[in-house]
Amino acid sequence: MSKLKPAPTLDDVARKAGVSTATVSRCLNTPDRVVEATRKRVQSAIEALGYTPNFAARVMAAKRTFTIGAIIPTMENAIFARGLQAFQEELHQHGYTLLVSSSAYKPATEEEQIRTLVARGADGLLLIGHDRAPHIYEFLQRRDIPALVAWSFSPDGRLPSIGFDNRAAMYELAQRVFDLGHRRLAVISGITHGNDRARLRLDGVRDAVRQRGLDPQGLQVIETPYEIENGADAFARLMSQDTPPTAVMCGNDVLAAGALLRAQDMGLKVPQDVSITGFDDIELARILRPALTTVHVPHREMGGKAAKALIEMVEKRAPAAGEHLFTHIVERQSLGPANSA
Amino acid sequence: MSKLKPAPTLDDVARKAGVSTATVSRCLNTPDRVVEATRKRVQSAIEALGYTPNFAARVMAAKRTFTIGAIIPTMENAIFARGLQAFQEELHQHGYTLLVSSSAYKPATEEEQIRTLVARGADGLLLIGHDRAPHIYEFLQRRDIPALVAWSFSPDGRLPSIGFDNRAAMYELAQRVFDLGHRRLAVISGITHGNDRARLRLDGVRDAVRQRGLDPQGLQVIETPYEIENGADAFARLMSQDTPPTAVMCGNDVLAAGALLRAQDMGLKVPQDVSITGFDDIELARILRPALTTVHVPHREMGGKAAKALIEMVEKRAPAAGEHLFTHIVERQSLGPANSA
Repeated sequence: MSKLKPAPTLDDVARKAGVSTATVSRCLNTPDRVVEATRKRVQSAIEALGYTPNFAARVMAAKRTFTIGAIIPTMENAIFARGLQAFQEELHQHGYTLLVSSSAYKPATEEEQIRTLVARGADGLLLIGHDRAPHIYEFLQRRDIPALVAWSFSPDGRLPSIGFDNRAAMYELAQRVFDLGHRRLAVISGITHGNDRARLRLDGVRDAVRQRGLDPQGLQVIETPYEIENGADAFARLMSQDTPPTAVMCGNDVLAAGALLRAQDMGLKVPQDVSITGFDDIELARILRPALTTVHVPHREMGGKAAKALIEMVEKRAPAAGEHLFTHIVERQSLGPANSA
Repeated sequence: MSKLKPAPTLDDVARKAGVSTATVSRCLNTPDRVVEATRKRVQSAIEALGYTPNFAARVMAAKRTFTIGAIIPTMENAIFARGLQAFQEELHQHGYTLLVSSSAYKPATEEEQIRTLVARGADGLLLIGHDRAPHIYEFLQRRDIPALVAWSFSPDGRLPSIGFDNRAAMYELAQRVFDLGHRRLAVISGITHGNDRARLRLDGVRDAVRQRGLDPQGLQVIETPYEIENGADAFARLMSQDTPPTAVMCGNDVLAAGALLRAQDMGLKVPQDVSITGFDDIELARILRPALTTVHVPHREMGGKAAKALIEMVEKRAPAAGEHLFTHIVERQSLGPANSA
């Protein structure tokens, strides 16, 4: 007695063609969007298996564009590049294409880019950080666009987030600086207005200052956009004072790179004369001499997990849980004991 | 006798509101895409001037999405970031939003991203380099999508291009290396397959070798993807030979950074023991110690001009002329006279 062979499914076709089910869907629904070679491979698999697309699969596929949008503050300095690369690789495996916009840290530009990506049919959006006007969240809700925040974890943000605790991470690094005997600290911070990551990192230093029984008002802070030249100039200003700091904590590796290079130009030895720290652990941190002591951000883990969560949100129409990822301090050569000068 | 006052135009509204005419068009045709504050400003200007949009303006506006797509090979290492930033700033001034995709140097991914951006309604596309399959150019032509190539100028490409002569630029640098007495050259090149920029740079070195009456077959070449680690490994292989090169020319600054860092690890002094050169003059080149002698690419000029040309193509439906931009050698510390060892 021969059993009735079950009808081939979309999964069977995908497996035979060696592609994702999303790609098979696209071949059936938006063939013009699929690379020729892939389309042919899927067509062969469909023919070999005798697959007939059922109604459910068509409905499932027709409502999507398989396009995800991401809006990042900048493409320069590769701060977001590695995480975004992992995000894209994971999306690609599921048959989605990534379109990226960079807002130059300008809220109005970010809003325009969100509206553009929604108008262009993005299935979902990745945003950086939680700081934005309430009407933008309302717009996303009204248009029913799944959106996820990365680079900043907050359990009570308007959107679910996959990221780390910027404040706790910087607090830990500041504690390490204090442990090495430093008392005259200064901070070169990114612009905190509209940037929760920058603000929280600064809060983290202030937490540590308070925890040591010092007055956070006495902490010197220069806010400046994340560019190497700005880090250099801020460092020069700090060090030209009568009693300069013994440790300069920077809001990210880019500012720290500027500080380090300017220290060399000023004939200051790092860390003997002054310690400098960064945040992010981008490639730059390893390349600088002395190499930078910094906070390691799990860029690739964050990007991959954000992609998985966003696809879930798009495909299941369900809210994501969010996830708190961990950072750690990477000790290299730019942080040392306080000098006794 | 009072003259008949001419009816206010779109230009008048734009001037009064302090925005581009494209932004006024968007406010009239796709208000949902415009930032609230801008929309209100334009609305006030329309009311104050008593402007009534005429039919021609509506037609002009309705057919466009004011979205431009750019597909770049990578977002890492900031090779394309500065040029793209200038491209975006210029687009923004004309009311266009930029969406970027990165192909990871994979032709099939680039094709998919071109199809996605066209499917999502991009008014025009910026592509990097001229190497791609003929059916992609045919697809763009069939869909009547204006497209422009940057980072590689060629007077007889399938698309108009705004870029520089990669071959001539590298030839000039190789001549400089020869002038300094080097005879044992080696090249760490990017992967040349599917990458005209990499291939032309390598051709440039070979041209100089031939011009000196040497055999280009004798030139040692390692091809490897543009990553710091790869540059380091290739350098180590070259230097572990019995008669290592006295100068290592790298296909870009990223590979050169890897070579430089590995030289330090190997205890080799640059340029006393071995000279190293780059290409691109990205920020990295200035940061390395010794700072890198490299080819300066006019990133910002190229990005700005490419945006202007592409907007022309989109708005006038006319082919762009293309433009040959110039590079120059930036002499820093990594290239010196050949050692006599």
